[in-house]
Amino acid sequence: MNVRGSLRIVGIGPGSEAWITPEASALISRATDLIGYAPYLDRLPLMPGQVRHQSGNGEELERARHALRLAGEGRDVALISGGDPGIFAMAAAVFEAIDEDEACWRDIDIAVSPGISAMQAAAARIGAPLGHDFCAISLSDNLKPWPLVEKRLAAAASADFVIALYNPASAARPHHIHEAFALLRGLKPASTPVVLARAVGRADERILVESLESADPGFADMSTLVIVGSSESRIVPRNGSVPFVYTPRRAKVAR
Amino acid sequence: MNVRGSLRIVGIGPGSEAWITPEASALISRATDLIGYAPYLDRLPLMPGQVRHQSGNGEELERARHALRLAGEGRDVALISGGDPGIFAMAAAVFEAIDEDEACWRDIDIAVSPGISAMQAAAARIGAPLGHDFCAISLSDNLKPWPLVEKRLAAAASADFVIALYNPASAARPHHIHEAFALLRGLKPASTPVVLARAVGRADERILVESLESADPGFADMSTLVIVGSSESRIVPRNGSVPFVYTPRRAKVAR
Repeated sequence: MNVRGSLRIVGIGPGSEAWITPEASALISRATDLIGYAPYLDRLPLMPGQVRHQSGNGEELERARHALRLAGEGRDVALISGGDPGIFAMAAAVFEAIDEDEACWRDIDIAVSPGISAMQAAAARIGAPLGHDFCAISLSDNLKPWPLVEKRLAAAASADFVIALYNPASAARPHHIHEAFALLRGLKPASTPVVLARAVGRADERILVESLESADPGFADMSTLVIVGSSESRIVPRNGSVPFVYTPRRAKVAR
Repeated sequence: MNVRGSLRIVGIGPGSEAWITPEASALISRATDLIGYAPYLDRLPLMPGQVRHQSGNGEELERARHALRLAGEGRDVALISGGDPGIFAMAAAVFEAIDEDEACWRDIDIAVSPGISAMQAAAARIGAPLGHDFCAISLSDNLKPWPLVEKRLAAAASADFVIALYNPASAARPHHIHEAFALLRGLKPASTPVVLARAVGRADERILVESLESADPGFADMSTLVIVGSSESRIVPRNGSVPFVYTPRRAKVAR
């Protein structure tokens, strides 16, 4: 099979056009076909002659297969991902499909274009909370058992990582962030800085700086990224502004 | 004190100009002063009338103070950081200086502009190795005790995180990545996929896909980012090309 098409898995960041890389913009403008979740496609300029394939949220594996089929048919496809495709986004689904489905898909010209992920945008808005060793955990249990999430939260707390929480809550599963906070409150100091960043880079952006004790997990929705500090993370108050939060580059051995 | 200047801490990604965001480019072009490690400044176009303050590697806190002093004097300063300023780069040093030094620095107009970090660029080149829960650990012990690094590596292995290793080796400390591999080899399967990504986005880019058993830690230098997979991470061979590496979105509870 002579495969002439191509697939680019393109990250457009978390909301602001100013965070879409030149590589991503170039790949989007030269594609014959764009595939993606409708709100992501709506953020991109219409190009003459370009075909748009909108899909709903979820169904990531089917969206990935659709993109691979089109590329296999000779189209130049840009599969649009929010944030960074490689971080809790579309890239893993594509490589799952390649690994498990059609052997010929391995010969497609395929590449990933990285983007700004939500934790980076949230961190940039507030200071440098990810300034030292950190981990990123998705609280969705669609595809993994909740006990594995608990195990990872406990390990992250025990080794004093800063913790970035993706998918803290959804309409169907609003309780995960409550359970995660309950677990972390039993393992980390009440004064640990917490950042709740909703819709970063969008018009309705809202960011709260709290402590682990005071933070309301009910604030988090599916557009929210939560950062829980390490024992070293600090809040720097400011006059009339949201405080800064940062994690110093130096650290001690955690108790 | 009436502070009129500004400080922007700007990430320019890991090497390729195609990964510099429009926000970063705009902030760089409108600055009166650029401050940064010389090789980063060399990647940027010269602007008429703009003052460049080059510094050596290391000395991050002094560079941060220099930037804050200039902004406090009314200059519009862009402090240039490789990668993402918030991930093992310049932002934490600036907020340390603000927290610990001059109280008036808290009133400076200051913001961070995120960038593509090395782990994202490395992941994009090879597939989606960070496709599920992961952690990022710096192997430098300049500012933290080595036992804390060991504790975090062990916790990451026990909870089956994908592990991104920054600063795996330097001329002064070539042995850290060897020690880290020795520790991880005792805790994780020999077949665990490992990605060694040197100088991603630069002309001398070189990326190796190995197993934890076969990977040569001696390959890693200060320009290398290392990714060690989870028990779920997979290598997808291809005809005549570097294989893909990805971590599926689904996971089991680790043994």
